Amino acid sequence: MAEKRLAAFDIGGTSIKMAFLTTEGDIIRKWSIPTDRSDSGARIVGDIARSFYAELAADGLTTVDVLAAGVGAPGPADPIDGTISGAVNIGWQNGYPLKKLLEEAIELPVFIENDANCAALGEMWRGAGSGAGDVVCVTLGTGVGGGVVSKGMIITGVNGAAGEIGHITVEPENGFLCNCGKHGCLETVASATGIVNLYKQEGKEAPDARTVFEHAAAGDEAAKRVIDRCAFYLGLAIGNIANIVNPAKIVIGGGVSEAGEALLLPLEAYVKQFTFPRAMDVLSLEKAQLGNDAGVIGAAYLAKVMTV
Amino acid sequence: MAEKRLAAFDIGGTSIKMAFLTTEGDIIRKWSIPTDRSDSGARIVGDIARSFYAELAADGLTTVDVLAAGVGAPGPADPIDGTISGAVNIGWQNGYPLKKLLEEAIELPVFIENDANCAALGEMWRGAGSGAGDVVCVTLGTGVGGGVVSKGMIITGVNGAAGEIGHITVEPENGFLCNCGKHGCLETVASATGIVNLYKQEGKEAPDARTVFEHAAAGDEAAKRVIDRCAFYLGLAIGNIANIVNPAKIVIGGGVSEAGEALLLPLEAYVKQFTFPRAMDVLSLEKAQLGNDAGVIGAAYLAKVMTV
Repeated sequence: MAEKRLAAFDIGGTSIKMAFLTTEGDIIRKWSIPTDRSDSGARIVGDIARSFYAELAADGLTTVDVLAAGVGAPGPADPIDGTISGAVNIGWQNGYPLKKLLEEAIELPVFIENDANCAALGEMWRGAGSGAGDVVCVTLGTGVGGGVVSKGMIITGVNGAAGEIGHITVEPENGFLCNCGKHGCLETVASATGIVNLYKQEGKEAPDARTVFEHAAAGDEAAKRVIDRCAFYLGLAIGNIANIVNPAKIVIGGGVSEAGEALLLPLEAYVKQFTFPRAMDVLSLEKAQLGNDAGVIGAAYLAKVMTV
Repeated sequence: MAEKRLAAFDIGGTSIKMAFLTTEGDIIRKWSIPTDRSDSGARIVGDIARSFYAELAADGLTTVDVLAAGVGAPGPADPIDGTISGAVNIGWQNGYPLKKLLEEAIELPVFIENDANCAALGEMWRGAGSGAGDVVCVTLGTGVGGGVVSKGMIITGVNGAAGEIGHITVEPENGFLCNCGKHGCLETVASATGIVNLYKQEGKEAPDARTVFEHAAAGDEAAKRVIDRCAFYLGLAIGNIANIVNPAKIVIGGGVSEAGEALLLPLEAYVKQFTFPRAMDVLSLEKAQLGNDAGVIGAAYLAKVMTV
């Protein structure tokens, strides 16, 4: 009998990435389906199940050949009852019973986790974390997401709100208002939107973060100050994460991280400035390696370790 | 045969607290011996072993009646090789092989951990944490120490530097110089020494933190600003810890915490200001309950869970 495979689903606002993987984390096959957000997202679980069965049958297999499924979803996952909250952009009400519904639909053990946490597990297992058990991922996109992996597993916290790296307060006085209701969150200054915010504070306008980086490269002093300030805030947050969980690697991903050395060089200096020396001794900054595959690889890891 | 007991040793700069406990965490008997710091602390392990054997014999028991020993020591404990570093105030060089030496001396399994982490485990198990598995302890004394407990175990990090709560940077610009070499660490503004620092910054002098609290209670505006500022920094650090690890309880202990509501009321407001709303939903602040016993109770917990 062939070794069983893992199923992994990464549910996003516009598409659901799906994959079969080996228990070593190699992707056997991946595909995606659109996310149907109509009727408060009521069709999503059924759509996943139908596509899962169809692709499994196409390989001449049945559920017996699958060990378990791991799922990443865009909101905090309750580690006790298997529900997802705050997934407003796909229409689910708070406390959506994803684990239970999906287990009924695909008749396999299902393990769920926040999507940013899945990406962190993926990078830890097969990406920039290269197997180190203590890894923190920071994803700099439209918002700032993250996940904290300690001894090979996600720190979920009491109600799945651990790893809310985007909501670390880095500007406690006079900070920008964040979507979460707080002020001065990392997300308000280190996301793509945040970089535009900082540029506006300099009295200048840019349509997106990429343009600010381009202006900085062309010598615009205001844009250079913005990049430095962004690196400062990010370094402060990362340093404080390191002081609390003492990881081997901090993995930086997401669109903003593609700015490369313009951001990463000042960032390294600030991380060093704000990290306890003993924690700094073992810490390295790495760029994320798995891109959009991080989520399904991490979801597969979750399914694997929870099943064993 | 009677149930086996646990042995626990809490090694401090002036004394070593020793105890026998039941596997439920009840102290059967406790005593202490002086810490002999001469010869780079070379006599400490032998002193512990002699006292351990004498007290065991006094109860008519032998090592067969002891399950294991847990030890708290004043420096980062390496979770892999069982060494202690940074225990300069008792004379040990970096990488002191405490686990190995003590196992040879008492012929039992020995588990070591940083003393602040042991105190956190103690409060989690039998103190203010009341068994909640996700608890963070913050000890406000001459310095600021702490420990982060997730799912019932200490987060140690890669080289035992996790939980360095006193070295969270809360004043990234123009902060006071810390003993660790960084600037703006929580310890420089929220320890007993830190409160005196802040008072000095107001242009005033006080011999100790207690006096600053007394002045504040008597209406001294500068002292009141200092208490508020201390609560602000502490609330910022605690809020950011909650955003990263999402605990059920933050337990505040140490001499400074005895200032009571004068500190804790403004602190609660600042914690709320700086904590991600979903993490705040499940978070409560508690005063430490175990006092000086927290270390031995936590060391016993460590011995228990590592042995099972």
